[in-house]
Amino acid sequence: MAQQHLDPSGPFPVQDGTTALGGYLRSQATEFLRSLRQHRESGAAGDTADAARALRRAARRISGTLHTFRPLLDADWSDALRPELAWLSGTLAQEHAYGERLERLGDALQRLTTAGPAPAARLPQQAPATNALTVGAAKAAALLDRQLTLARTRAHSTALQALGSSRFHAVADNVAVLASEVPLSGADTGLNKLALEAESRLAEAVAALRHTGHPYNADADTPWHHVRLLLRLHRYAQEVVLDDPRADPRLCEAAHALNTHRDAAEAAAAAAQAARTPRIAPPTAYALGVLHADQRHEVEAARIEFRQAWQRERVGTP
Amino acid sequence: MAQQHLDPSGPFPVQDGTTALGGYLRSQATEFLRSLRQHRESGAAGDTADAARALRRAARRISGTLHTFRPLLDADWSDALRPELAWLSGTLAQEHAYGERLERLGDALQRLTTAGPAPAARLPQQAPATNALTVGAAKAAALLDRQLTLARTRAHSTALQALGSSRFHAVADNVAVLASEVPLSGADTGLNKLALEAESRLAEAVAALRHTGHPYNADADTPWHHVRLLLRLHRYAQEVVLDDPRADPRLCEAAHALNTHRDAAEAAAAAAQAARTPRIAPPTAYALGVLHADQRHEVEAARIEFRQAWQRERVGTP
Repeated sequence: MAQQHLDPSGPFPVQDGTTALGGYLRSQATEFLRSLRQHRESGAAGDTADAARALRRAARRISGTLHTFRPLLDADWSDALRPELAWLSGTLAQEHAYGERLERLGDALQRLTTAGPAPAARLPQQAPATNALTVGAAKAAALLDRQLTLARTRAHSTALQALGSSRFHAVADNVAVLASEVPLSGADTGLNKLALEAESRLAEAVAALRHTGHPYNADADTPWHHVRLLLRLHRYAQEVVLDDPRADPRLCEAAHALNTHRDAAEAAAAAAQAARTPRIAPPTAYALGVLHADQRHEVEAARIEFRQAWQRERVGTP
Repeated sequence: MAQQHLDPSGPFPVQDGTTALGGYLRSQATEFLRSLRQHRESGAAGDTADAARALRRAARRISGTLHTFRPLLDADWSDALRPELAWLSGTLAQEHAYGERLERLGDALQRLTTAGPAPAARLPQQAPATNALTVGAAKAAALLDRQLTLARTRAHSTALQALGSSRFHAVADNVAVLASEVPLSGADTGLNKLALEAESRLAEAVAALRHTGHPYNADADTPWHHVRLLLRLHRYAQEVVLDDPRADPRLCEAAHALNTHRDAAEAAAAAAQAARTPRIAPPTAYALGVLHADQRHEVEAARIEFRQAWQRERVGTP
């Protein structure tokens, strides 16, 4: 699928702005309510996780759309709903994030200790170095497992409490309103203009990104995290104006790279955090240091991957 | 300067083979003896280091030339001299290598802890992570300084002992013979053929290199170290047959990348070794883990740099 850039002078699938916006918000609100029912009725853990993912997905789309197309919507209503949706999707995302982080760090430790040719090809004098990391890596894996499993369990409880709270019921009521009737501001123009503005904000933020060349400098991550959010808003705005739920695959690649960037940055921070656990053994701390640096290099690799995907997206080649 | 590939059918500066070989070996032997005098007469540490570097440089060139052009030389004589020259340049290289390694690791630790924007731009919650690495990095730097300075001091004593030994005097006597009269085998052809064979061995070894994608796998370094030695032999053979002491700048880039590869691999091993020091604090071990991984990524970067330089060398673009 070729990407359609939002050129107001070009061939663009024009439709009534508020019809497209209303249709999109209604369908996402319906999806929100459907996944909520599914979440309540699901028994198996896998089903619950799928339902929670669908719920977060719809909540992010509603929140992003309220943001990008704010002038077309009832301002008081949407300004009140947006932070509540952000709270909800943020709270629901935690449990999943801790699980993913544990898996990412476990895979990395596995890779760091098992990389290499078959044992027969190893030189004898290199065996001690390999073993030293192996011992520390096993202890580091156990430590991370304890810490992140505990955090995930807590996040699970917090999510369950959130879904039973009156705060959540107020959000669900507002989304139910949205499913039947979208509160519009009365303005009936500017849908494409607002979508173009979202695209411009993204393009400007990407242009301002610098490759720092300092992979260990977590302070430099912030503009990249910001671009990740702006890319998300751009994709949702595209879904609204193109009336097509399938985003451009190249935008998906760029988004995927920025998700990896975020995941690797948080995994690196988790490794650093685990290394500050009192009374750990030096080999464990050493393995966590290797792991931290490895994840910071994954952060760097994700930046390069994003730039390549973005470049392909810009020049329009597949 | 454009590179001249050694095509026997092409326009090639043909000269009498043994004349070129003899001239080259005599000039390197003269250089060896000159730097040896300079080393003995030098007072300042910097002058001594320069003289030792020139001595190693000549010893490597003589040894490599004896290897590549072995059929043209008195076999017994050159087979006896080569390992002695290797012993000498290896022994003299150690002190310098420990000093360079300490500098490389110190610079890396500096970079790891000071990278980032001005303090005002930092977010407050990121300060503890930065400080944790800073504390460990300072201790790691002190530990590496102690260990590598001790090793360098020992290497210095070993080098002084070597230069005063009867074994060394035998080497110097043999090199003095070489400066006046090169012991030839009697064969008078095949200089270009032997140089081409050295080039072929290099090309085959480069073609067999694989990018492992496992930056922490030190076992995979060996073929790269071998290519480094073959590239050195190729460069020296070029110096002989082209009668030009200035190697092609692109070959210099490739050689530089492989030197960095070797230095980073040894620095990574030194960081891992330091982490096995008994009773170090966990933050020190953590910083050494970060440092180890950082140097392994420098190993990876050097491989990419080598491939790029080699590609430029092959296609003949500047």
